[in-house]
Amino acid sequence: MGTEKRRYYGAVEAGGTKFVCAIGDETGRLLVEERFPTTDPVNTLAHMLSTLHRLAAGFGPLSAVGLGSFGPVELRREAPRYGQILDTPKPGWSSTDIAGALAREFRVPVGFDTDVNGAALAEHRWGSSQNVEDLVYITIGTGIGGGAIVGGHLVHGLMHPEIGHLYPRKHPRDAEFRGVCPFHGDCLEGLASGPAIIARCGASFEELPPDHPRWEIEADYLAQLCASLVLTLSPRRIVLGGGVMNQTRLLPMIRPRLQHWLGGYLRRDELSRDIDAFVVPPRLGAQAGILGALALALQAL
Amino acid sequence: MGTEKRRYYGAVEAGGTKFVCAIGDETGRLLVEERFPTTDPVNTLAHMLSTLHRLAAGFGPLSAVGLGSFGPVELRREAPRYGQILDTPKPGWSSTDIAGALAREFRVPVGFDTDVNGAALAEHRWGSSQNVEDLVYITIGTGIGGGAIVGGHLVHGLMHPEIGHLYPRKHPRDAEFRGVCPFHGDCLEGLASGPAIIARCGASFEELPPDHPRWEIEADYLAQLCASLVLTLSPRRIVLGGGVMNQTRLLPMIRPRLQHWLGGYLRRDELSRDIDAFVVPPRLGAQAGILGALALALQAL
Repeated sequence: MGTEKRRYYGAVEAGGTKFVCAIGDETGRLLVEERFPTTDPVNTLAHMLSTLHRLAAGFGPLSAVGLGSFGPVELRREAPRYGQILDTPKPGWSSTDIAGALAREFRVPVGFDTDVNGAALAEHRWGSSQNVEDLVYITIGTGIGGGAIVGGHLVHGLMHPEIGHLYPRKHPRDAEFRGVCPFHGDCLEGLASGPAIIARCGASFEELPPDHPRWEIEADYLAQLCASLVLTLSPRRIVLGGGVMNQTRLLPMIRPRLQHWLGGYLRRDELSRDIDAFVVPPRLGAQAGILGALALALQAL
Repeated sequence: MGTEKRRYYGAVEAGGTKFVCAIGDETGRLLVEERFPTTDPVNTLAHMLSTLHRLAAGFGPLSAVGLGSFGPVELRREAPRYGQILDTPKPGWSSTDIAGALAREFRVPVGFDTDVNGAALAEHRWGSSQNVEDLVYITIGTGIGGGAIVGGHLVHGLMHPEIGHLYPRKHPRDAEFRGVCPFHGDCLEGLASGPAIIARCGASFEELPPDHPRWEIEADYLAQLCASLVLTLSPRRIVLGGGVMNQTRLLPMIRPRLQHWLGGYLRRDELSRDIDAFVVPPRLGAQAGILGALALALQAL
C-alpha cells in the first residue's frame, strides 16, 4: 500500500420499495452493502443514517455521500426545497428532506439526483457507455423512468427528465386499454410498465406465452419512447434496464420498431447498421442504482 | 473611441428559401445585412462568399464567421463530413460542405450549427431567455424545428434535436388527415406546419375564420410538443417562433393544453401560476436566425 490514504464514499439508493446502503471506492467497487424495505419516511431515514454509520465504521470517515432517489425530487440548488422529495403519490413521503438528512448527519459533500440520473452516470463511468458523452438510461419496471447525460453532464432544468410520462401512440391492438397511470391514464408508464402489463393481460411477462400479442405491443411502445429520445435529447446510446427488460427477447424486438418510427429520416450508421450497439442493456445490471449513488458521491467531491 | 480595435463578425443564415448575410459586433448589433434567394448549391455558396466579402469590406478583416443552416447537418467535429448538409429532401444540396466553404475562404474560426440551435443561442444571449440556462427554441413555419440549450450548452449528440418529427396523438377532429411529411406522414411537421394547415384546410391561418376548428387542433398539437419537451429536455423556458406563430392568438391557446397534457404531474409554479413566462414568443422576432449566426460566430472565437 502507498502512503496516500484511501478514500471511501457512502452510497444510498432510495427506492420506493427498498433502500440500499453501501460503502464504495473511486474505482466503482462496493465494499459492503445492505438493503432494507422502505416504510414511512421517519423510520426509513433513521434506518438509512444508522445503517450507513455502521457500514462506514470499518473504513474511517467518509469523503462524500451519494444519493440516488425515487422522485420527483428538487434538484435546483437555488430552491428552498433543494434536496427534498417533491409531491409524490407515495403516502407520507412528499416534502421529505432526504438529502438534507444525510448532509446534516455526515457533514460531507452530498451528491443528490434521481435514481435514474445516477444510474445513467454509473453506466457512463463504469458500464455500457464509457466514453459516450450523450446517453439516456431508461428503467422499465414498476414505473418507467429515465436519466440523461448531454455533453457529459446530467440533465437538470426546470425538473429532471420524466420520460415515463410521454404519450406514445396507442397500438391498434391496445386501443381499448385506458392505462394505469394515476396522473395520465395511458401515458407510457400507464401502458408499458410492469403493473400496466398485468392490468392489461392479467399476467406478467414471466407467465405470458412467447406468441402472446403483448410482446409486440410492448416493444412498439418502448420503441416509440426511444424514437422520442433520439429526436429530442439526441443520445449516442440508449440503455434499457429494469425488471421488464430482464425479458431479453424484448430488446431485439424494439430495435426494428425504433427504425420504423424514425422512418429513415436520420441517416446514421448508429441507427441502421450499428443499431445493436445503439440500443443496449445496462452492463451494471441490477447494480446500476447503487453504483449510481456511488458515482454521485464521487461527483460531489 | 478607445485604443482597442473593434472586432467584427460575419454571419450567415442559410435557409431553404433564402440566405441572409450580415456583419455584426459582440453586442448583437447588425451593421449591414443582405439577403438573396436560395438556388442550387454551387451558385448559392459563391453568392454567399462574395456577398460576405463585399459586406465586410468596410469593416476590415472578420474575427470569426457564424453559420446557422437548414438541416440535417453534420455537427460532430470528429466526423469526416463535419460542416456538411447531410441527406436533405432539398434537391442537389445533400453533402454540400457549407461550413468548409466559409472556413477555406475566410481562414477564421467558423461557428456552425443548425439555424434553430443558433436562434436558441441568440434568444439566450440577447432575447427572451437571458440568464435562462435550459431552454428550447421552436419555429413553426414551412417546417417545424427546434434548438435546445441544456445547462448553458447547445445540444449535440448523435445528431441535433429534430423535434419536428415527434409524433403527437391525433386530435379526434383530425383523425382522417394523413399528414404531409414525406418521411413520416402524420408526425408534428406533417400535421401542424404551415403546409400541413393548407393541405388540411385548403387555406392558411391568415384566411381561416377565428371560429374554425383548426385553431384548437393546432394549439393542441403544439402543446403536445411542448409537453414532450418538458418531459425530456426539462427546459426552464420554451420559445415559440416562426410564421405560424405570427398568429398571436395561438400562444394563449397552447398554454392550457400544455397543462392538460402534463396532467398536474409536475408541480412547478412555472407550469401553473407563471406559465405565461414559461411559454413565450421570441423577443428577437424574425431576426432570431441571423442573430443566431452572429452568436455562433462569437462562440467560435
